[in-house]
Amino acid sequence: MKIVVDAMGGDHAPAVAVEGAVQAARILDAEIVLVGQQEKVHGELDKHDTAGLALTVQHASQVIEMDEHPAAAVKEKKDCSMVVGMEMLKRQEADAFFTAGNSGGALAAALFRLGRIRGIKRPALSTIFPSQTPQGYCFLLDIGANADCKPEYLEQFALMGSIYAERVLGVPNPRVAIVSNGEEEGKGNQLVQETVPLLKAGRFNFVGNAEGKDIPWGLADVIVTDGFTGNVVIKLAEGVSGLLLDILKQEITSSNLSKVGALLAKPAFDQVKKRLDYREYGGAPLLGVDGVVIVGHGRSDSLAIRNGIRMAAQAVENGVLDAIKQGLTEVER
Amino acid sequence: MKIVVDAMGGDHAPAVAVEGAVQAARILDAEIVLVGQQEKVHGELDKHDTAGLALTVQHASQVIEMDEHPAAAVKEKKDCSMVVGMEMLKRQEADAFFTAGNSGGALAAALFRLGRIRGIKRPALSTIFPSQTPQGYCFLLDIGANADCKPEYLEQFALMGSIYAERVLGVPNPRVAIVSNGEEEGKGNQLVQETVPLLKAGRFNFVGNAEGKDIPWGLADVIVTDGFTGNVVIKLAEGVSGLLLDILKQEITSSNLSKVGALLAKPAFDQVKKRLDYREYGGAPLLGVDGVVIVGHGRSDSLAIRNGIRMAAQAVENGVLDAIKQGLTEVER
Repeated sequence: MKIVVDAMGGDHAPAVAVEGAVQAARILDAEIVLVGQQEKVHGELDKHDTAGLALTVQHASQVIEMDEHPAAAVKEKKDCSMVVGMEMLKRQEADAFFTAGNSGGALAAALFRLGRIRGIKRPALSTIFPSQTPQGYCFLLDIGANADCKPEYLEQFALMGSIYAERVLGVPNPRVAIVSNGEEEGKGNQLVQETVPLLKAGRFNFVGNAEGKDIPWGLADVIVTDGFTGNVVIKLAEGVSGLLLDILKQEITSSNLSKVGALLAKPAFDQVKKRLDYREYGGAPLLGVDGVVIVGHGRSDSLAIRNGIRMAAQAVENGVLDAIKQGLTEVER
Repeated sequence: MKIVVDAMGGDHAPAVAVEGAVQAARILDAEIVLVGQQEKVHGELDKHDTAGLALTVQHASQVIEMDEHPAAAVKEKKDCSMVVGMEMLKRQEADAFFTAGNSGGALAAALFRLGRIRGIKRPALSTIFPSQTPQGYCFLLDIGANADCKPEYLEQFALMGSIYAERVLGVPNPRVAIVSNGEEEGKGNQLVQETVPLLKAGRFNFVGNAEGKDIPWGLADVIVTDGFTGNVVIKLAEGVSGLLLDILKQEITSSNLSKVGALLAKPAFDQVKKRLDYREYGGAPLLGVDGVVIVGHGRSDSLAIRNGIRMAAQAVENGVLDAIKQGLTEVER
């Protein structure tokens, strides 16, 4: 197995991406190809002991700058790491691609170079979202690739999400729900009302509507929604939890027993932050493009990068792409 | 001024509604009419010292039961407190109506008996949402009356919300934003993209798109969205904050220094709960119906009821209804 890693993706690239790739090479039975500006990548690799590791470098001369629009830039810069990595997948020189770069850029590069899986109407961006499920999170999609959706798109998101949750996240018979403004059947906007009959007829474990509060409280393992709502959901959750932790910290440290309180509460805050943190999970797939592409958070540290690369390996090992293709064939009417 | 209070609305009716009305009668220069089953209401009133207070009772024989669908029930039960109260407004026997009953039921009763303000295409449900604005919250609408919206609806929500925020909440020149999946102009689903030009041309202080994270972080004082998204927003925020406080409490009390930690942290948790609590604000209006109607939270205690009734009085005093009618005339094209 060969996994391509975007050495130039993420807030702390290339240092952190290279460090994560080295860690991944130590634990995985796979060759890892770091794609990026070779002098910089080699400069980082030299800081680590890579003796005996299956690590190679693929040069990509261009870099997407901070002030560029990522999705537009990947079309302009044909020799940037994301495009070069996707092309390796396309030419079947590698089995999966991991990047901690911008997800919109990754989506554009994937559509541009890999294209969609035959029969898939729209690809989706996804994320791991903290939730009181047995596994501690749910799998949420679409979170921003498609602001306006049709029922058939959401139906395919449900199918792809269910397959991914089962095969890569290891959730048996994952429960699938759709975001709505009410739990009762019949609630929803027009899109939801038209989608529900398709989900009920789908070859997955559809459990009904999920209200906003049900998402963190573990009602379902896979939660589908349009990219507009999904984007609002993840950003609102980030905003609300950030604000709440901020206020609590202020309150605790402003009390008379401030230092003692803060000290006692710190492990609890750290634990909560960990549960809200992407690093534990590594990344989430672009589903619907014709290749295994995992996108990590821009703030990823080396542990998150390592976990993301391992997730890419699991997706390959467990045949996610073929399973989706197979699933599509079965539902063709 | 005469304010009608639904004695039968809320989780702890009639006891808490009556208690709140008594408190309101003590501080307001207004007559308060408690509407509901008169023997029960009088039974509760007898528990308080009401000497010298302008408090009367209007009988309404029917009650909406827990297992009924509130919006359907108000159409069936023409002598329930919500319908009787709305009819008093309609006949101009009172100036405002407050209920802590079901908001969907209140909306149905208002549409059924009061109707819409002439020119208003759709009424909206609204809420006070905790946010880092100078006043500590923003005003969010629609939160569920209209799952599918047209740009003209959102334009009217912005106008009504801006007038309400200025006249009743006391926010000078309130900043108005629209929920979107990106801050940059041009981001949004089709509805948002078509609405933004209308908002830019509106007679209010439109400041642009608000991402999910911007809602709690104080970007705007009035935030408009369709009722589907708004409903997901308020329920997700409730779910995320509830889960977070739960996890934190577990973590703090499970630590070695559990009892001390829990004791020290308690005031902080109480403070945060207070900031997230509806009780401080009292209620939110149904905007677009032809009368002043304020809906409080079902969990309201007597303080919340009192504050909600005071809010209704402020809305009357500050001429919200006429201001909206005037605003509509000005934007007619």
